[in-house]
Formats: sequence, C-alpha cells, structure tokens
Amino acid sequence: MPDRQRADARRNYARILAVAEQEVAAHGAGASLEQISRVAGVGSATVRRHFPTRRALLEAVSHQRIEALSARARELECHGDGRDALLEWLGDVVAYCVAARGLAPALAYDGTETETGSIHENSCAAMLNEAGEPLLRRAAQDGAVADGVTVADLIALIVGIALATEHHPDPLARANRLFRLAIAGLSPRGGS
Amino acid sequence: MPDRQRADARRNYARILAVAEQEVAAHGAGASLEQISRVAGVGSATVRRHFPTRRALLEAVSHQRIEALSARARELECHGDGRDALLEWLGDVVAYCVAARGLAPALAYDGTETETGSIHENSCAAMLNEAGEPLLRRAAQDGAVADGVTVADLIALIVGIALATEHHPDPLARANRLFRLAIAGLSPRGGS
Repeated sequence: MPDRQRADARRNYARILAVAEQEVAAHGAGASLEQISRVAGVGSATVRRHFPTRRALLEAVSHQRIEALSARARELECHGDGRDALLEWLGDVVAYCVAARGLAPALAYDGTETETGSIHENSCAAMLNEAGEPLLRRAAQDGAVADGVTVADLIALIVGIALATEHHPDPLARANRLFRLAIAGLSPRGGS
Repeated sequence: MPDRQRADARRNYARILAVAEQEVAAHGAGASLEQISRVAGVGSATVRRHFPTRRALLEAVSHQRIEALSARARELECHGDGRDALLEWLGDVVAYCVAARGLAPALAYDGTETETGSIHENSCAAMLNEAGEPLLRRAAQDGAVADGVTVADLIALIVGIALATEHHPDPLARANRLFRLAIAGLSPRGGS
C-alpha cells in the first residue's frame, strides 16, 4: 500500500473510532454502525474493513478509553494527597463505566473466565488494575486504605454500580451517590 | 372446578414453583422448563397452564424469595444489636441476589422505568425496601448508619455486586467480600 493510502487509512481509523466513542456514549453498545459511518463521512465498507464486527469496534472504543484512564492515573500519581488522587481517579472510572454502558459488562468478566473473546476484556481489567495500583499504594501509605482492599475490588464495585444504575433516569448521579456510599461505608466516621 | 381438582392444581403449582426455585438457583434465568416439568413430575402442559411464559415463572420464583426475605426481616426486627440485625439481613439479600443470578437484573430497574413488565420488578424492589426499612431505622437509632443512607441505596449496591460477580468462579464469596468492603468503606476505621 503506498504511503498516502496508508496515511488515509490511519486517519479514517482514528475518525471512525472518535465518532464511535461519541455514539457509544450516547446510545450504548447498540449504537448504529450506519450512523457512525455517516457521521465519520466514510462508506460502511470502510467501517467494516477497519472493524469487521461490532464487537471489534466496541473493543477498540473501550481500549481507547482505558488508555485515557491509564494516562490520567499517571498524571495523578504525584498529585496532592494520596487519598484524593485515588478517589479522583476512581471517580473517572465511575464516569467511564456509566458512559460506556453496554461496555461495562465486558469488565465484569473475571480473569479466570474461559469463554471465547474474554482475552480482551481481561486485558482491559488488567490495564485498569495496573493503572490504579500506584495510586492505591500511595493512598495506603498515607493510611487511607483499609488492609486487604485491592484495585480489583474497587473496580469490581464500580462495574457493579454502573450495571445496577443503567436504567436509572440519571445514571451518573445515582452511580456517584452509590460509589460515595461504598467509599464512606455504612456507619458514620468516628461512629460505632 | 371440583374441590379435589382445585387442591391438585394448588399442589402442582407449589411443586412446580419449588422445583423452579432450585433449577433457577442452579442454572440461572435460562433454567430448562422441560427439566422443571420432569423433576416436578408433571406434564409440560401443566407447567404452561400455571406459568404461560418463562417470565411468569421467573416472577413467581422471585416473588416467593422476596416473601422469604421479608419474613426474615420481621424475625430480625427485635433481634440483638440493630447494626448486626441489619447486616445479617443484607447478607441474606446478597445471597439471594447471587443465587437468583438472571433474576437480579430485574431488580436493577428503577421505580421510574416505564417498560412493559416493569411493574412486578418494581414491586419486588418496593417489597425489599419496605422489609428493610425497620431494620435500617433501628440501626440508625443505634448510631450505626451514616446520614442519608437508604435501604434503596444498600439494595442497589447489592444488586450491582451480584451483577459484577456473576462470572466469577465463586460468585458468593466474591460478592460477600465486595459487600463487606462497601459496608466498611475504603479507609480503616479510626483512620483519616
């Protein structure tokens, strides 16, 4: 393939992915592929060439978002208070899981899942775990994390909260409320 | 219908429901209706007469379980410490949601959901909320519940945890761990 064609293909790929991200955020995993090709200004054959299945497209969208969350975690690593940095990042993970809607169930698969296609899902969960690890470690050093709490625990809670609030009229507000509850715990601080 | 026929019909109904409960606990919402009629020792026409759709059967199973959880809440109302009683009941709700698997998503629907068929789902959530209310109130009087925490919040968290742990090799152990984390909160008690 000549260089110019290759550059065109890369641009198309990036444009389709950017549009797909918006459409998935607005309509969930069932976002229309026709609408995506229309808004991206490419033919549906071009979409199919880059993303042969809906699943391939959703995985690419999900991967792109996870990359952004990983970058955010690196930014926050040296940022102010350890507990604040961890909670800010986890808040971004909540927003991601809620916006991703249909994508969140993919993260519910556990590392030991053997179904076909779970490799990518696991790699998403693994990437998030890895990204959050330094933030958790720093917050723990600051004495802000109870013994035994892992990034995987916190992400599983968030995935669950996103799933449970999917049909709520304001899923993000509801998810944030439940997440704050889980972080604060049932009893008042300083209470029994 | 003569009395004896009516009594037979009631017995069949109860037997089908009891078998359905076991099959749903073992295989989730996709439990085989053929298997249920075989184990219950009735014809599949009898199953269909009592439960014209799979949904009708699942709703009956779910309703029966919710009734049992409501009865348990009443038992615990005057039982020992308020916080312990609430947590014991919520632990039963975790076990119910995990065992119900395919049924748990039904509880994720919010009260404002307008889709056909949501009435029963809402009524399940409403029954659980009502059953848990006196337990929460007593725990709150004992100073064991932070301001603003509601039974609906706690049940939404549990439904989410059940959904997020569905594919785990040991869903109940994983769900219990995440639930304990949410009840304890992120930070060590007495910590920051």
